[in-house]
Amino acid sequence: MANRDLFISVDEALARILKSIAPLEPIEVDLGKARGLVISEDVASPVDVPEFDNSAYDGYAVRAADIDSARIDAPVPLHVVGEIPAGPTGTVEVGPGTAARIMTGAPIPPGADAVLPFEATDGVHWAQRIVGTDALVHVVEPTMIGSNIRRRGGDVRTNDVIAPMGTVVDAAHIGVLASVGITQLRVHPRARVAVLPTGDEIVEIDGSLQPGQIRNSNAWGLTALIEHYGATPHRLPIARDTEDSLRETLRHGDGSDLIVTIGGVSMGDHDLVRNVIAAEGHIDFWQINMKPGKPLAFGTVNGTPVVGLPGNPVSSMVGFELFIRPTLLKMMGHTQINSPTVRARAVQEMRSSDGKRTFIRVNIYRSGCDFVCMPAGSQDSFRLTSMTAGNGLAIVAEGTIIQKGEFVTVMALNERELLLLDGGR
Amino acid sequence: MANRDLFISVDEALARILKSIAPLEPIEVDLGKARGLVISEDVASPVDVPEFDNSAYDGYAVRAADIDSARIDAPVPLHVVGEIPAGPTGTVEVGPGTAARIMTGAPIPPGADAVLPFEATDGVHWAQRIVGTDALVHVVEPTMIGSNIRRRGGDVRTNDVIAPMGTVVDAAHIGVLASVGITQLRVHPRARVAVLPTGDEIVEIDGSLQPGQIRNSNAWGLTALIEHYGATPHRLPIARDTEDSLRETLRHGDGSDLIVTIGGVSMGDHDLVRNVIAAEGHIDFWQINMKPGKPLAFGTVNGTPVVGLPGNPVSSMVGFELFIRPTLLKMMGHTQINSPTVRARAVQEMRSSDGKRTFIRVNIYRSGCDFVCMPAGSQDSFRLTSMTAGNGLAIVAEGTIIQKGEFVTVMALNERELLLLDGGR
Repeated sequence: MANRDLFISVDEALARILKSIAPLEPIEVDLGKARGLVISEDVASPVDVPEFDNSAYDGYAVRAADIDSARIDAPVPLHVVGEIPAGPTGTVEVGPGTAARIMTGAPIPPGADAVLPFEATDGVHWAQRIVGTDALVHVVEPTMIGSNIRRRGGDVRTNDVIAPMGTVVDAAHIGVLASVGITQLRVHPRARVAVLPTGDEIVEIDGSLQPGQIRNSNAWGLTALIEHYGATPHRLPIARDTEDSLRETLRHGDGSDLIVTIGGVSMGDHDLVRNVIAAEGHIDFWQINMKPGKPLAFGTVNGTPVVGLPGNPVSSMVGFELFIRPTLLKMMGHTQINSPTVRARAVQEMRSSDGKRTFIRVNIYRSGCDFVCMPAGSQDSFRLTSMTAGNGLAIVAEGTIIQKGEFVTVMALNERELLLLDGGR
Repeated sequence: MANRDLFISVDEALARILKSIAPLEPIEVDLGKARGLVISEDVASPVDVPEFDNSAYDGYAVRAADIDSARIDAPVPLHVVGEIPAGPTGTVEVGPGTAARIMTGAPIPPGADAVLPFEATDGVHWAQRIVGTDALVHVVEPTMIGSNIRRRGGDVRTNDVIAPMGTVVDAAHIGVLASVGITQLRVHPRARVAVLPTGDEIVEIDGSLQPGQIRNSNAWGLTALIEHYGATPHRLPIARDTEDSLRETLRHGDGSDLIVTIGGVSMGDHDLVRNVIAAEGHIDFWQINMKPGKPLAFGTVNGTPVVGLPGNPVSSMVGFELFIRPTLLKMMGHTQINSPTVRARAVQEMRSSDGKRTFIRVNIYRSGCDFVCMPAGSQDSFRLTSMTAGNGLAIVAEGTIIQKGEFVTVMALNERELLLLDGGR
């Protein structure tokens, strides 16, 4: 068997990759294009929020001094001189002994210093209108100056930070930023990732197979994963098992932030990827002490980082999850770059295979207040079902056995997030 | 106050909306465009998987009868007549007394009926080559016919269903479908959703505000939410508070699968949405027994369903989550259309407000084997922070109080999924 001394741990391999990766240079994007991207500098409000004194209730704008004596058995009448709907300010002013009907969010009219909800008046509720020189409203309780008024700047003052650096922009942030008039954001851009399949045996996915051939399906699966994490994939042509073909195809990756090759990294016959990257740039090649997904190449070509994944579909997906996912997230400015994990009880024994850190595809279930996990479908990496089964990867540490009923750490598997499912979903 | 008899429950409102919505007519899309979409009919494999008999190991293709007597102290020598790399079949044949070096996945050569892993031979491991007329391999254990051969069709037979109707396509499905040569899928299309803001007080988000005005931020927030759920949003111009303006703007929504209006549905002064939809088509208007988000209009214009959300940002987001999200997911063929929920202990008392079903923005945490939830930021719907805080909505049933320490049901809030977080994330 291969010399175990050449093996490095999953953690060391990841640390060495991440050490050489920096967040991509920020760019400015339209707010509407920012969803899922990471803000690269603190975003301050350009305005006070609210931007004008406004009413917290549907009711009447009044002068507090006018109604000091108001009580239920001695209501104070006020003349209703106008109404203030939503929309640009009208000309209504509130003088002594008067009130203006006002809606939630409408600006406080000149002269008024408090708002009374309809409930503090004589039953004139919000669905009715009483406005005009002859209209009276009877106030049944006093109030204080400023009550039920949202003051300009009371929530946020101009230049207050409303979205700190590192925020992953979601719909709510977009709503909030739009509400203060921010239309452009500085963010880390989407990483551009070239996907480069290699191998004489690979044919395009619409081709029919001769014995010994397989379709270029890994490139399609990885492309979809790259999109899922918010990066922009680009499938390169299939490189053949010659140094010339691989070298030429690699050039199609110029201008990418990352090149991911598939196949050609075994210790066996066609480990061209290693040789060509070494010749064109710089290469580390590792046997990683893990299963599946042992061989991994990492290096740079023309300054572009290259990760070489193994060709087996399950190995390449696990390699993506462990190494490419955090790489992409770091490039795009994320700080939480590792997959979320959970501790779950193993419903059956799980063993480290051949002394390696072993990843076992599992499904997670709630069981009472615990989580349990169960191996999902066949673990045989050539089976179709093994690709689509399960929502997590149980991590069995090097050389260990998780006994039935013991807890094991499970990481979320690509997009099949480990939701807090109750039965009632 | 408004007549409580006009109120309907959240559940009834949702049921009435969903009853009138059908999944959208399936379309055919390229496999690479199918991520996140729902397959509308069972997808059968067009081929056997594997498509040819192939090796499950790196090793030697042999004839089992040749090595019946092999044991560690009496190894059987075989002539190594060739090697079978990945790629199109060569001309190697395995006759009596011979073996062919073979790699995992490579086709079984004519004449061979079993595969021996390297480990069953005399230490010739996978990184070395011994091929040629003079090369011998010594076999140290017998095998059975068929061993370590993956048989054609052994995983999937032609016409077996490999992705059932209702599958939400993810990266792993794309990889699997590509591997059998499927390049097109029938799926429910993305719902096209027109977003129609209404109100004289609304200005575009890059405008500066006069007192009484607010920016069109709800439309931006909802647009981002619609995208998040995989639908295709289209922001219409801002309709002014006249029936003509609203009618004209509604026409821009022709060709959409759903129109969502914002504002103009209060029982107050400018409930134009109700009137115009009723005049142009059919309208139900409900006061829903919930807080926030009480008023909701639902109807159809020219056969297109219309949901009228209230104008308050928090109300409109909660309304989206409760009514638009499941509507979109149903249109796009999903069967799990309700938000995932979890039971969590309330760290403080939570009360139904005014007898209504009350939604309280919370953060979920693990605490021992339980989850706990804590109100997130200000619940004051006008505060900026209230829009971006929290990852769930605690549901306090009508007229009830959740005591501190009691369990409450929490639904995942839009894209802030309730992951199974451990501290180690």
